[in-house]
Amino acid sequence: MKRILTGDRTTGKLHLGHYVGSLQNRVKLQDEYDTFIILADIQALTTHFERPELLNKSIYDVAIDNLSVGLDPNKITMFLQSKVSAIAELTVFYSMLVSVNSLRHNPTIKTEAKQYGYDDLSYGFLGYPVSQTADITFCDADLVPVGDDQIPHIEQARKIARRFNDLYGKGKVIIKEPKPLLSNTPRLIGLDGNSKMGKSLGNAIYLSDAVEDVNAKIKSAATDRNRIKIKDAGNPDICTISKYHEVFNPSEYKNIYEMCRNADVGCVACKKLLAEKINCLVAPFRETRAYYEEHKSEVRDIILAGSEKANMVGNKIVEDIKRAMNIHIE
Amino acid sequence: MKRILTGDRTTGKLHLGHYVGSLQNRVKLQDEYDTFIILADIQALTTHFERPELLNKSIYDVAIDNLSVGLDPNKITMFLQSKVSAIAELTVFYSMLVSVNSLRHNPTIKTEAKQYGYDDLSYGFLGYPVSQTADITFCDADLVPVGDDQIPHIEQARKIARRFNDLYGKGKVIIKEPKPLLSNTPRLIGLDGNSKMGKSLGNAIYLSDAVEDVNAKIKSAATDRNRIKIKDAGNPDICTISKYHEVFNPSEYKNIYEMCRNADVGCVACKKLLAEKINCLVAPFRETRAYYEEHKSEVRDIILAGSEKANMVGNKIVEDIKRAMNIHIE
Ligand code: SF4
Ligand code: SF4
Repeated sequence: MKRILTGDRTTGKLHLGHYVGSLQNRVKLQDEYDTFIILADIQALTTHFERPELLNKSIYDVAIDNLSVGLDPNKITMFLQSKVSAIAELTVFYSMLVSVNSLRHNPTIKTEAKQYGYDDLSYGFLGYPVSQTADITFCDADLVPVGDDQIPHIEQARKIARRFNDLYGKGKVIIKEPKPLLSNTPRLIGLDGNSKMGKSLGNAIYLSDAVEDVNAKIKSAATDRNRIKIKDAGNPDICTISKYHEVFNPSEYKNIYEMCRNADVGCVACKKLLAEKINCLVAPFRETRAYYEEHKSEVRDIILAGSEKANMVGNKIVEDIKRAMNIHIE
Repeated sequence: MKRILTGDRTTGKLHLGHYVGSLQNRVKLQDEYDTFIILADIQALTTHFERPELLNKSIYDVAIDNLSVGLDPNKITMFLQSKVSAIAELTVFYSMLVSVNSLRHNPTIKTEAKQYGYDDLSYGFLGYPVSQTADITFCDADLVPVGDDQIPHIEQARKIARRFNDLYGKGKVIIKEPKPLLSNTPRLIGLDGNSKMGKSLGNAIYLSDAVEDVNAKIKSAATDRNRIKIKDAGNPDICTISKYHEVFNPSEYKNIYEMCRNADVGCVACKKLLAEKINCLVAPFRETRAYYEEHKSEVRDIILAGSEKANMVGNKIVEDIKRAMNIHIE
């Protein structure tokens, strides 16, 4: 079985955007791949280091979010980034193989730098592509499930691995060059019609939302503002609810689209139908969630066991690397 | 007993400049302080990552250099940086607390950047002050023996520790702010009269040099070039040999100084006397060295035992830090 590395930053609860964008796919992949799921608490620190109160809670939130959607602790290896020292060790090794200049050309860094300026970035943030490479390669991952937009990240990781192998491999592969596993998952817009559902944008339906929360959120979501009376024809192309029907109610989507255009359905009914569909999707997740919320020590044990396995794999790689770099004594 | 952290980069054999500049002092300090000596092989990588062939040999060379001058394995804790994952972990944590900007103002980085430009520096090199802070603080060191010129480094480490404590300590000290332990040790000039004896400058007398090497090196060292004939008065102020007498033959120094000025001593005799003094100083080191060269597995065991102790101390600090940062699960 080939190994994949995927996961989430532990900066808060996951939402439907995460579900359609990656979790759903992750559930499928666990049967085909040896799946490593990183709970990226150190990566979370890079941006949230001033909010320690959030971090511990988020570790459990994100772990339970993953388990709730159907990731099976007997199949996957879910581990806590901060518990795997190999990742920090690889980060330090890779630091020497990457120039400050090449980091400045990384798209993620560029975007952030545009906002804050390069010099105000933290040193850790500038090194984000380096530590991401460590996250991927510490476990000898073959593949990383990503969308198109993340291909440059994988490219960076491949470049570092290649440079390492060129310098120290003597023709052998010490660090496997990871490949992207492209998945064509939709990007979910926010409840406010914003281009992206985001943790910090106040426009998200969380996997942990109760039925009433989902109902209320859908009820107040942005629709076609020009549709005032029920007899007015709507424009589903500019309506959030319509976009959600496309994702969560695909079989009825075309139908609803036409009905909206012809004023054959009212927004209240249209929203109610969507809320039902979403609640229906989330219902089994809620059951699993309830179980784990009641049995938090089981969640902890899953994370600890996964971290232990990750450490075994990671320490082996670190030993290989040190031997290749000639700083190994025994 | 207060703890001190000191050590050397494993980038080649140590020389007399290291001896008078730090090793000599280190030998004294081992009786007053709990002495941790780092064999900085990862720091060595920052600049020597393209010379892996040098690295492994240097670990043993530097360890034996330290032992040969009288550092007692029963008193000190000598450890290999790459064997202590806590250092890498702290480096990653501290990365988030330091801006790229503040690193650019660090004197060491500035000097290096002047030569290569900021953008061509490796990311690891830019982070040198961060990893140095990790080296010092991972073992809860109270003091770091340094010369005046290194005070900014300690200041940087103190700043990072303070920032950490401010952010996460809730009034408690999690990371001890290390203090400089100032020692007024001379800086040894090179055999070529160059301002500094340097590993890579070809102007060094190594602690591992044989008697004949020392004699030959002193014989060909730079003196007062204007003194051609033995009857010419010399100018000891511009003569390397005179400077060495000051350090290695202090009781006779004034005398020789005057004799040189009055042409009462010839350069050949003056050099011979110095070589004798140096060989006399180094003689007991050679004996100890010979023992360890014969018993390399003992050296390895000293390093491994020290690394194990360093790991115990370091892992405890990492646990404390994680708990403070709220990324601790148990
Ligand atoms: S009927 Fe549905 S798709 Fe049309 S505007 Fe109203 S909520 Fe949007
Ligand atoms: S006599 Fe000694 S101090 Fe004077 S110039 Fe010659 S070597 Fe130098």
